[in-house]
Amino acid sequence: MPTDSIIKSMIRTIPDHPKKGILFRDISTLIGNAKGLRYSIDKMKDRYSSYEFDIVAGIEARGFIIGSAFAYAMNKGFVPVRKKGKLPGDIVSHNYDLEYGSDTIEIQKDAIQKGQKVLLIDDLLATGGTALGAISLIEKLGAEIVEICFLVDLPELKGGEKLKKAGYKYHAFCEFEGH
Amino acid sequence: MPTDSIIKSMIRTIPDHPKKGILFRDISTLIGNAKGLRYSIDKMKDRYSSYEFDIVAGIEARGFIIGSAFAYAMNKGFVPVRKKGKLPGDIVSHNYDLEYGSDTIEIQKDAIQKGQKVLLIDDLLATGGTALGAISLIEKLGAEIVEICFLVDLPELKGGEKLKKAGYKYHAFCEFEGH
Repeated sequence: MPTDSIIKSMIRTIPDHPKKGILFRDISTLIGNAKGLRYSIDKMKDRYSSYEFDIVAGIEARGFIIGSAFAYAMNKGFVPVRKKGKLPGDIVSHNYDLEYGSDTIEIQKDAIQKGQKVLLIDDLLATGGTALGAISLIEKLGAEIVEICFLVDLPELKGGEKLKKAGYKYHAFCEFEGH
Repeated sequence: MPTDSIIKSMIRTIPDHPKKGILFRDISTLIGNAKGLRYSIDKMKDRYSSYEFDIVAGIEARGFIIGSAFAYAMNKGFVPVRKKGKLPGDIVSHNYDLEYGSDTIEIQKDAIQKGQKVLLIDDLLATGGTALGAISLIEKLGAEIVEICFLVDLPELKGGEKLKKAGYKYHAFCEFEGH
């Protein structure tokens, strides 16, 4: 995948967060900068303006930041995929395994209609577990995933391979070595 | 404060969330609708296009959804105010009391520069505790609050009175009775 060197250069690396040995790729420096936020969202707009889709879904919490600005820019609605217990009303849930323990994500049942085409957004692709969980929720509602879009891919963690093997298309604007 | 009847009419009420007796004002129906998201952000843009400010801060998590789309629309950068332990690097923290227990919010030290003018965004004004916490973090960094903007105010919970008494200007696009 071709790297966008402007996006990559504006993402900062912070060592040992959330725990020792992890290189945290911090998009705060990109989105905190007026030109960086504008550039990133406009790059997403360039890529997806020829795609047919109905709605944008974003994964809590950094996926909200880029997903909703992108939805606004594309004149679409925005659907939040949230952590357990946050969404009111009728929801669908998906439980997935983490390195230690497990996590649950949820979506409101009426947030996405049967047959709709959904663009799924998150800031970073690591193992792909959360993205696959969100996909499963969206498909439970009878909708179709058009593509999953990330700002950053960490290829060593093989999330991209997992998404491809499951039959999904994804795009990331840059990659970082390590994890 | 004049009510925006379009925004108000697109917000749904869900009883008994997160606990019995609470009427939860759910903005999902507003932001999940392409016209609702576009209308809300453009209304914010109308209000603030004559204001002088440098950056937009949004409070986790629904404040990210409207705050970042608004920052993009205004050609500004976006700064997330997050719950404890989420932000990497050097941070400032603020602890505040809740009805039962307490909560902590954080902001990255270099996310906002001394002397900058900040517009603070959240979806809903209840008791005002979180907004006042976010204000205190932003002021710790030497920046100035221009205004705090909400989609919804719950006047019975008196958050607005508290903000005014503390000397801050705020705006909400609609109000709901009860809490």
